[in-house]
Amino acid sequence: MSYRIGVVDTMFARVDMGKYAVEELNKYGDVDIVRVTVPGMKDLAVACKKLLDGDCDVCLAIAMVGAHKLDEVCAHEANMGIMQAQLMTNKHVLGVFVHEIEADNEKDLYDICVDRATKHARNAYLIVAKPEELTKNAGAGRRQGRADAGRLVVK
Amino acid sequence: MSYRIGVVDTMFARVDMGKYAVEELNKYGDVDIVRVTVPGMKDLAVACKKLLDGDCDVCLAIAMVGAHKLDEVCAHEANMGIMQAQLMTNKHVLGVFVHEIEADNEKDLYDICVDRATKHARNAYLIVAKPEELTKNAGAGRRQGRADAGRLVVK
Amino acid sequence: MSYRIGVVDTMFARVDMGKYAVEELNKYGDVDIVRVTVPGMKDLAVACKKLLDGDCDVCLAIAMVGAHKLDEVCAHEANMGIMQAQLMTNKHVLGVFVHEIEADNEKDLYDICVDRATKHARNAYLIVAKPEELTKNAGAGRRQGRADAGRLVVK
Amino acid sequence: MSYRIGVVDTMFARVDMGKYAVEELNKYGDVDIVRVTVPGMKDLAVACKKLLDGDCDVCLAIAMVGAHKLDEVCAHEANMGIMQAQLMTNKHVLGVFVHEIEADNEKDLYDICVDRATKHARNAYLIVAKPEELTKNAGAGRRQGRADAGRLVVK
Amino acid sequence: MSYRIGVVDTMFARVDMGKYAVEELNKYGDVDIVRVTVPGMKDLAVACKKLLDGDCDVCLAIAMVGAHKLDEVCAHEANMGIMQAQLMTNKHVLGVFVHEIEADNEKDLYDICVDRATKHARNAYLIVAKPEELTKNAGAGRRQGRADAGRLVVK
Repeated sequence: MSYRIGVVDTMFARVDMGKYAVEELNKYGDVDIVRVTVPGMKDLAVACKKLLDGDCDVCLAIAMVGAHKLDEVCAHEANMGIMQAQLMTNKHVLGVFVHEIEADNEKDLYDICVDRATKHARNAYLIVAKPEELTKNAGAGRRQGRADAGRLVVK
Repeated sequence: MSYRIGVVDTMFARVDMGKYAVEELNKYGDVDIVRVTVPGMKDLAVACKKLLDGDCDVCLAIAMVGAHKLDEVCAHEANMGIMQAQLMTNKHVLGVFVHEIEADNEKDLYDICVDRATKHARNAYLIVAKPEELTKNAGAGRRQGRADAGRLVVK
Repeated sequence: MSYRIGVVDTMFARVDMGKYAVEELNKYGDVDIVRVTVPGMKDLAVACKKLLDGDCDVCLAIAMVGAHKLDEVCAHEANMGIMQAQLMTNKHVLGVFVHEIEADNEKDLYDICVDRATKHARNAYLIVAKPEELTKNAGAGRRQGRADAGRLVVK
Repeated sequence: MSYRIGVVDTMFARVDMGKYAVEELNKYGDVDIVRVTVPGMKDLAVACKKLLDGDCDVCLAIAMVGAHKLDEVCAHEANMGIMQAQLMTNKHVLGVFVHEIEADNEKDLYDICVDRATKHARNAYLIVAKPEELTKNAGAGRRQGRADAGRLVVK
Repeated sequence: MSYRIGVVDTMFARVDMGKYAVEELNKYGDVDIVRVTVPGMKDLAVACKKLLDGDCDVCLAIAMVGAHKLDEVCAHEANMGIMQAQLMTNKHVLGVFVHEIEADNEKDLYDICVDRATKHARNAYLIVAKPEELTKNAGAGRRQGRADAGRLVVK
């Protein structure tokens, strides 16, 4: 048996994050990948929904968010749709959204993209194949895009 | 076989973007167009939903957003409805929203309208007829309304 | 055959906009009006939904929005509910919301109320009885509450 | 026959508004009251939904909103849920939300609570028992929490 | 008979709040706990929905919210999804969200986490096992995370 994972990304993004997600998922022997690309982030939710209504077990929804305030509103709308798609299908969609305002410069932006896409690809796999692996890290300050924050230690 | 594409626009907008979308769609031999006009952008979602519940394969939802902050709230509500319409029908609606605050002047506003309507009309066609064309441009920085941003190149 | 149009308004509003809507609708020979009043704008959505689940073909949802920021949040919630009611019933609800912050003074506020209620009553009729009339005005800069903005002319 | 009215409030609020609502409802001979208390305002929507899916005809959803901006976001989420609960059940839920930022001082806050709970309890009764009473006050500037604003008179 | 309570938390959080919730729930003799961990707060809603569609009677959705404005938007999206999950299942999900901006320092943040997780675990038990206990505290100014505010006393 293998897990079927949807990788849905956009033409709007300036980094091919889907490629990095696919590279990570290819490390696991029991994964089939379905890749779909849409114009922009507000098109992700229904694309994921169609895959999840089909035979995908989980999806990655991958987007880059511009720096204009209109882009932030779009990201919110996209995320609300992705939330809904999950509730309608009872399956997870892990959002891999990278916001330009997170990054210090283009190099930093690129690095965040690669790190987040890779780590969330792994999370998508674990959430369907080995959910107990996630529980071991409950409250552990795990981050995608940057280094982990770690557990809060208070004296 | 032909693809049935809904072009839904408003009386509120000051540019007949629907016309430009129709002109683009008419370039393809296998497209039937259904055109509907509603008063304002908050009326787009249900109009699209009705077309998609009928025999349309995909819709364009076309609007111009005024510069007042109330207009921005309306645009957000309209987009949330369009998001929902897609999830309820498992079909795409490409939003062609042009915001006055995007433009430097009226000429610029007009140009954005034409460019965005035309390019998204093409996207609407591709998403149902040739989805693999979109995947070729994953992460390629494609834009509608302005020139493409292109892929991020980091040394 | 006649069209059945719901006119739903509030006790909160300070102008009886429903009356002006009814006056306009009474000009058409083939309209039956159902009038319902609720306490405030957040009660409009379910009132419209009940009418549309019944035998109304379209509704007007009429409200006045106070100037406090809490009123604006309420208006957003009301509009999101109205959006949802439309998508659940596949019928239009035209929102006739007048915001105090739109107006220069009380006289101006009153005039906006009358103009918007009257024009949207006509739109509600056209949307079910003569939708092709709306298409003639696609992108024509039609406004309710103020004078039309007109088409954008760029040299 | 009697009307069944749900009174749903929170442990978070600092005034027992539910008590005032019940006192008002007890003035009517044909009302049965079902009282439910939840921890905070975001728990109101599903509590109302359960009552309306049962045999309640209408609900009051009663909450006090703190002055922190996080409290305002919670209130918005709570209200969106209440909106949804109404649309899913085709029954009214009257929101009795009192925001600390509305009040000048603690005495004022208390008075708003009592006034709003009492008047909306009456509205809840009227909306199911005598809806025509509400229509008489269409556009009459009725307020809950403060004195009525009255109709706008323009010379 | 025993009550089945879902404890759903994240790897993103820096405090293992789920552990404190479980400790509290273990004090009650008639509780079975199902623990699930997801990557981040936007993954909580569908995880809860799946448990509630299964045999859980109520869920705790536990998250820590970072200090960046993007984190606040995520929290809002997460909460809207949790709201929806409740309405779709007619069961309660108590949100245990701790925002970094609530705390004065890391020690304070830790204390809020423990207090809120513990008290809401108790609330989750009461809401299904002894709802009348909650009604005794209607309008009593109960807080989770900080000391109770208490009832408002006005002279």
